[in-house]
Amino acid sequence: MLYFDYGATSYPKPKRVIEGALRAMESLGANPGRSGHQMALRASREIFDAREVVAKFFNIKDPKQVIFTSSCTESLNLGIKGVLNKGDHVITTSMEHNSVLRPIKAMEVEGVENTIIPCNKDGSLPLEKVDQSIKVNTKLIVMTHSSNLTGTLMPVEEVGKIARERGILFCVDAAQTAGVYPIDVEKMYIDLLAAPGHKGLLGPQGTGILYIKENLHLKTLKEGGTGSKSQDLIQPEILPDRYESGTPNTPGIVGLKEGIGYILEKGRANILSHEESLIKYFLEEVEKLDFIEVYGPKDCKKQSPVVALNFRGMDSSEMAYILDSMFNIAVRPGLHCAPLAHQTIGTLEQGVVRFSFGYNTTLEEVKEGIEAIKSIGTEL
Amino acid sequence: MLYFDYGATSYPKPKRVIEGALRAMESLGANPGRSGHQMALRASREIFDAREVVAKFFNIKDPKQVIFTSSCTESLNLGIKGVLNKGDHVITTSMEHNSVLRPIKAMEVEGVENTIIPCNKDGSLPLEKVDQSIKVNTKLIVMTHSSNLTGTLMPVEEVGKIARERGILFCVDAAQTAGVYPIDVEKMYIDLLAAPGHKGLLGPQGTGILYIKENLHLKTLKEGGTGSKSQDLIQPEILPDRYESGTPNTPGIVGLKEGIGYILEKGRANILSHEESLIKYFLEEVEKLDFIEVYGPKDCKKQSPVVALNFRGMDSSEMAYILDSMFNIAVRPGLHCAPLAHQTIGTLEQGVVRFSFGYNTTLEEVKEGIEAIKSIGTEL
Repeated sequence: MLYFDYGATSYPKPKRVIEGALRAMESLGANPGRSGHQMALRASREIFDAREVVAKFFNIKDPKQVIFTSSCTESLNLGIKGVLNKGDHVITTSMEHNSVLRPIKAMEVEGVENTIIPCNKDGSLPLEKVDQSIKVNTKLIVMTHSSNLTGTLMPVEEVGKIARERGILFCVDAAQTAGVYPIDVEKMYIDLLAAPGHKGLLGPQGTGILYIKENLHLKTLKEGGTGSKSQDLIQPEILPDRYESGTPNTPGIVGLKEGIGYILEKGRANILSHEESLIKYFLEEVEKLDFIEVYGPKDCKKQSPVVALNFRGMDSSEMAYILDSMFNIAVRPGLHCAPLAHQTIGTLEQGVVRFSFGYNTTLEEVKEGIEAIKSIGTEL
Repeated sequence: MLYFDYGATSYPKPKRVIEGALRAMESLGANPGRSGHQMALRASREIFDAREVVAKFFNIKDPKQVIFTSSCTESLNLGIKGVLNKGDHVITTSMEHNSVLRPIKAMEVEGVENTIIPCNKDGSLPLEKVDQSIKVNTKLIVMTHSSNLTGTLMPVEEVGKIARERGILFCVDAAQTAGVYPIDVEKMYIDLLAAPGHKGLLGPQGTGILYIKENLHLKTLKEGGTGSKSQDLIQPEILPDRYESGTPNTPGIVGLKEGIGYILEKGRANILSHEESLIKYFLEEVEKLDFIEVYGPKDCKKQSPVVALNFRGMDSSEMAYILDSMFNIAVRPGLHCAPLAHQTIGTLEQGVVRFSFGYNTTLEEVKEGIEAIKSIGTEL
């Protein structure tokens, strides 16, 4: 199988990720932070180590500000709902995933206003619109680092600077970039950073992280056992406990630590330049084919390794089906949980076929993918 | 190590659980329910299979009513917050875990009233108090199936019947019983059943389930990508998607399915009678020791395999430390995230040492545990 669906999840996982999760299941079977016996303490230490690794990776000063969640979606819900209250205003973009748009729409019902900035046809953000959208009650700007539809890289640092200058909180959805693109929460003025553990960070599914800036107090999504301040019937203030009720996903978190370990071993910048070379080649080749329509920036420096395209006149699902059944190529057709992004690029009806590459994709595989596309084209 | 901390999590996991999670990481690396390619479809099918297995296990008619969550805590938060609104009244007991009490206390701030029924000193519920606590605005009764402190088994079916007759929703926290004790959502009048995947169900950490009765519509805790109705900016109504935003924990869910598979293979009733024999022996032996104070029903038919005890005059943490460091015995001291339960049995200051046994505990291990307790006793 040619796996071109890294935008959904990374596959295969590095060996050490699977081994880490396995080790956790086999020898760290205790409940971390609860009991005080040796295995529970070992499990707690492993999770603390993971927190440190994540913190260092994103230049987060205090590991306690790293919250482990079950997914980037949960991280975004916690971040967005945690800071917004009735009467507040939030700004976002039309290129967002439903994991940003749906929580914002859910809060609209509760009296939180929103502005969704319409992006350009290649998915890029008209930066001047950010400033223009700010109102007196604007509390938060939330945006993706890179579109999961077109790969368009967003000017996160620039928007972060505006937010910081205007005293507005800034939340970044790094679902498509964490692990591959440089992210520095200090340099990029990020107050809340949401990322999945299982995409670019190469960890197992069922993991996510949320960085919360120091002294930023969020409402909780869930309350429960934290293993701390058990005598209190209200959720403790202490971090990370406040936001991590319930038994953690120890195998997932240990696997995630190993995922980042793998990235550090290979070098994040090396992985990025490898992925850039793949996207560059792929874009150049599909651009030559007149039966293919490509969306997005079409520039490997302006987009993450995600390409949205269509065979002219063919439904995206049909094309994906042919790629899968005849060429054993895994891509993702349809709407990609990003309806306004499709509206922005003009593909809400047809959908697109998304090719997305990752750390383990080879140039040979991409070439095979191009040959498959050409071969389908000649049959049309 | 003698692992007597099954109340926190089951360890070790059956081999097939670990193999299932491993297989999911190695060969089901896609994002289920999102893309349509073969591996994604295989992952979707495995998750659907798991849903069917869970449904059958608890006599749930429609597998779509089984929601996979990241923990029992999340299940309880979703169940409790999903049905309660300002002006409603909820009834619970003093034996609850913080994963029930803290969400209820959090909702108090939002105008949801509550009544916490004080239980008897052995943790048992004065059943007449349930009826007496019902008010015109009572919307929900939520209670544990078995105390995580004393093991006290609660009269779930009786309370469920009262709730059903009075038109009140009934939510059961099966954290200490699911997988071992018989649970039939129909027979027990359960509208919402919350359970962890990693305790008696023997699955990996990071998994939980919530059964939601048909036609019971909950508010969501999280919204986001569901892979369904992607064009809509509001969370879809379709189940289980409505409550399962974000990439699922595929390895965890496949492992959980294997955990239940193991239980079915061994026979749930056989596991229960094995655990009952352990608790019977342990209770008989500790009752003979005059330096030990035992809490709870002290009857293997009235309590799950969880025993709360103290060495007279010794702090629970100190005793647990000695058991761990000198005898390599893993127990859990302290407050067990259940402060009102400790108040009920009179141990809020001292805490207790909790011994909890599981499917893999042997009588020989329990005997060794007893010897260790005796040996500490002679040193006092």
